[in-house]
Amino acid sequence: MQPRLITLEGGEGAGKSTVLAQLRETLESAGESVVCTREPGGTPLAEQIRDLLLSPGHEPPTPETELLLMFAGRAQHVRGTILPALASGSWVISDRFTDASYAYQGAARGGDRDFIAELERRVVGIVPGMTLLLDVPVETGLQRVRGRGTADRIESEAHGFFDTVRRAYLARADAERSRFRVIDASRPATVVAGEAVAHLLAYRETLL
Amino acid sequence: MQPRLITLEGGEGAGKSTVLAQLRETLESAGESVVCTREPGGTPLAEQIRDLLLSPGHEPPTPETELLLMFAGRAQHVRGTILPALASGSWVISDRFTDASYAYQGAARGGDRDFIAELERRVVGIVPGMTLLLDVPVETGLQRVRGRGTADRIESEAHGFFDTVRRAYLARADAERSRFRVIDASRPATVVAGEAVAHLLAYRETLL
Repeated sequence: MQPRLITLEGGEGAGKSTVLAQLRETLESAGESVVCTREPGGTPLAEQIRDLLLSPGHEPPTPETELLLMFAGRAQHVRGTILPALASGSWVISDRFTDASYAYQGAARGGDRDFIAELERRVVGIVPGMTLLLDVPVETGLQRVRGRGTADRIESEAHGFFDTVRRAYLARADAERSRFRVIDASRPATVVAGEAVAHLLAYRETLL
Repeated sequence: MQPRLITLEGGEGAGKSTVLAQLRETLESAGESVVCTREPGGTPLAEQIRDLLLSPGHEPPTPETELLLMFAGRAQHVRGTILPALASGSWVISDRFTDASYAYQGAARGGDRDFIAELERRVVGIVPGMTLLLDVPVETGLQRVRGRGTADRIESEAHGFFDTVRRAYLARADAERSRFRVIDASRPATVVAGEAVAHLLAYRETLL
């Protein structure tokens, strides 16, 4: 477990970007060094893998290819960005991490849970200290995303896909209550961000 | 086992391209349909993954990332190109396949053999009917490659790396004698290609 690694999880339109900016500001105001990053992505090579995964213009990956590309990018992200930042004493806040593969490539795409767990053990090897799950009803989230313009390949999936993702995230949070904080993200952005900041401050207290 | 899937393996400068062309011609002259392909690569997406793996201009992948990118491309190649071609009755000749990951990402880069075997079982699931291993001393192969111009990222490895690759290939051939044919590729290209063609014709006889 990496105490200073915080991850944000949630479906489409959950408001992760706004929360991420508030968490960064909170830690920096407290004098901490913070690296904000995202998945898929987080290094130049992992961002190129992200483009292969998400651009609607590419040949669509099979479910097996999607799963391995996600973990290929994650392996690079952990070694190239996350571990060096943690080693230098920084906090790291990542917009999505391994939990997302259990929800998207596992539950929603039918990937085998044991295989995903083995990939996690073999090529990731670290677990966040705290994970904030921004939970929002699928329809609310999709309405917010539609306002943003063109959808990427995964955002273009059907309603049932995202419903499966949402239920998988909630099941993971229920199974790991000491790591997860579930936030009702259907409320206004300022309320959601305020609750996320409160969780972060309370969590940081436990580390001091 | 896929009887009509033939793979060519070997280190740098072993002469696989010349042999591939001769094998294709041999089968086509016998009235067979043939799909020639390669790894990494073999579909548009897998070729983009190949570019990430081999172009010296990119951020170098970690060993874990390299292994997963190889299998991500292979998963796509199997489902997008190889299985459809076999299903239509064609022969498929691939310049490299799963054996290469045991030699390069396994033996030479230190990847865990059991993990590679699990990736093979989970995302590849097929084994070639015959594999021709073009074996050449490392120095001979590298001299041939140097004549070609710029080396890619993997071709730029040190002598010891390729020596490990060569020994790993020979050990695999020794462990699976019914599938492998080892060809001394230090001889002139026409002799090597002639022996490869003879192996193919003898193998095809066993299928008729």
